[in-house]
Amino acid sequence: MTNMASNNPPFLAACHRQKTPHTPVWLMRQAGRYMEEYRTLRAQHDFLELCKRPELAAEITVTPVERLGVDAAILFADILLILEPMGVGLEYSKGDGPMIHRPVRSGKDVDALKDFEVKRELSFVYDAVKRIRKTLKASVPLIGFAGAPFTLASYLIEGGGSRNYVRTKTLFYKAPEAWKRLMKRLAQVIAEYLNCQIAAGAQAVQLFDSWAGCLAPADYEHFVLPYTKAVIDAITPGVPVINFSTGTTGLLKHIRASGGDVIGLDWRVNLDEGWATVGHDVAVQGNLDPVTLFASPKEIRRHVADVLRRAGGRPGHIFNLGHGVLPETPVDHVIAMVDAVHELSAR
Amino acid sequence: MTNMASNNPPFLAACHRQKTPHTPVWLMRQAGRYMEEYRTLRAQHDFLELCKRPELAAEITVTPVERLGVDAAILFADILLILEPMGVGLEYSKGDGPMIHRPVRSGKDVDALKDFEVKRELSFVYDAVKRIRKTLKASVPLIGFAGAPFTLASYLIEGGGSRNYVRTKTLFYKAPEAWKRLMKRLAQVIAEYLNCQIAAGAQAVQLFDSWAGCLAPADYEHFVLPYTKAVIDAITPGVPVINFSTGTTGLLKHIRASGGDVIGLDWRVNLDEGWATVGHDVAVQGNLDPVTLFASPKEIRRHVADVLRRAGGRPGHIFNLGHGVLPETPVDHVIAMVDAVHELSAR
Repeated sequence: MTNMASNNPPFLAACHRQKTPHTPVWLMRQAGRYMEEYRTLRAQHDFLELCKRPELAAEITVTPVERLGVDAAILFADILLILEPMGVGLEYSKGDGPMIHRPVRSGKDVDALKDFEVKRELSFVYDAVKRIRKTLKASVPLIGFAGAPFTLASYLIEGGGSRNYVRTKTLFYKAPEAWKRLMKRLAQVIAEYLNCQIAAGAQAVQLFDSWAGCLAPADYEHFVLPYTKAVIDAITPGVPVINFSTGTTGLLKHIRASGGDVIGLDWRVNLDEGWATVGHDVAVQGNLDPVTLFASPKEIRRHVADVLRRAGGRPGHIFNLGHGVLPETPVDHVIAMVDAVHELSAR
Repeated sequence: MTNMASNNPPFLAACHRQKTPHTPVWLMRQAGRYMEEYRTLRAQHDFLELCKRPELAAEITVTPVERLGVDAAILFADILLILEPMGVGLEYSKGDGPMIHRPVRSGKDVDALKDFEVKRELSFVYDAVKRIRKTLKASVPLIGFAGAPFTLASYLIEGGGSRNYVRTKTLFYKAPEAWKRLMKRLAQVIAEYLNCQIAAGAQAVQLFDSWAGCLAPADYEHFVLPYTKAVIDAITPGVPVINFSTGTTGLLKHIRASGGDVIGLDWRVNLDEGWATVGHDVAVQGNLDPVTLFASPKEIRRHVADVLRRAGGRPGHIFNLGHGVLPETPVDHVIAMVDAVHELSAR
């Protein structure tokens, strides 16, 4: 569909590599701790409550869209919510980040994961989607999301964040059958979860494979790619999928092979080189270093110009950071970035 | 010097891309916590004492060479030792990793760094080198090392390890002159430190830019490359330099441009693709995932074979892990890896 004009909002048009009046831009964690409105709500409610009360999740989702002038909204939720009904003891502890109290370490643990009705147990997410879709201007698309099978598996196995992913990799090396069962199950649940978000009103979905960057290409290919692909293949046809990861410059060809209408590129690769690697027959999203937003607005503008120059005006570029907005980021710098993208890319 | 036979030990011959009877192999942190001999010594002495007493550092350096049958020894020391005489309050605290009590956050802090005589203040390192060279078999080369300017600067600025390097990047964005002064000073001290190790008997040196993988290519090019290059350009002629980093698949061309006879490739890129990117007119070192050593010896052998296949028998490949041996690694798996490299590459 390249080079065709479109009545789609710019974000959706870019997902389909259609021409847009300007390069669309949104930010991962555009609703987050860097924003005073969020901190105020967070002081009154714990994190899970914010996710589980649709009116709060909706408010958090919509506020930054108006404040920043971005081209898309992303559902406020967390990639680990889907693990809670599996009965592994998910806890968002203060300071230490999320923890899994009963991590998965063996085939027996995999088989002990609870089956659950994705449609019913996570209905609060779909309720939030519906409410957001009602509140949000019709011209602003809403992005749903989920963690990718590998990233969720690594949380389940490590029990939290990890530096070296020793337990995760040891499981796939030493118990490949258990690994396969776990990944198949996750892929199925994730696809259903995303399709429920779509049914509720999400117009695009992003799959977060945030930790895939720890993998060697051959391991990604054997132990991860088939399951990411299974998720993407099962998504409601016509709804764009963004395949996001970080630290995966050496994996980009495999990531492309796992699917998606849009491939995420982080800042560790020049956008033109990354796009050439994944192929110009797919859209890309990225790729400013989130820390650049700590520089002066003038310096930020210079970096935005460089990313846009590397995108070369080719249809199918969605501007974004390479990862989420960091907590201490100045809000006016974020706005300066969004404005710079719109101004410098105006066609 | 490609394709010439050599009387050099295999490790040194490979640094110069000369033919070798087998692919040489050594491991980063081959002397470390995974080994009982090391843990026994460490239980009796604190970490700095092990570094500062040449007879202990020498013993720790030599033991794994005999135990593992590797083709090179690497000096037992730490990249942060060089920061101690700068007066920033370096402490190896238990559990939390190394800390800098008076981190560098401004131009004023940069100017307050103490000048010191590299030859005198770090003489314990050169004494260790001399002692190791006396103990070690003549056929086993000894590698000296230092942290690269960026990695040392980020420790000085962040005060320890970091997730996002916000303070480091903010300094180079907002105070580029202070950054330049800091990097120039580090480059000078590092080069002198490495040349003193060489004068004492080190036959090759490795520059560890362990954290360069957090950088965007343009930032590496402007804020890092000139200083890494300055170090490498100042090294005693004829002594091979290994330019090591991790997570830098998207930076490899710039890393090559910063110099070195051997470029480190981590496991996040296929060795053949990484070698093609840096150019076949330079040697490469790598690139097994350290976590692979937790797999079965059979699986390890399969992975070794894959790396060797990708190296294609081309002179100038030094087998190594993509990063250091992890603390829980089984020693017999390390030995299985070394044996597999020697057996499968025998020519």
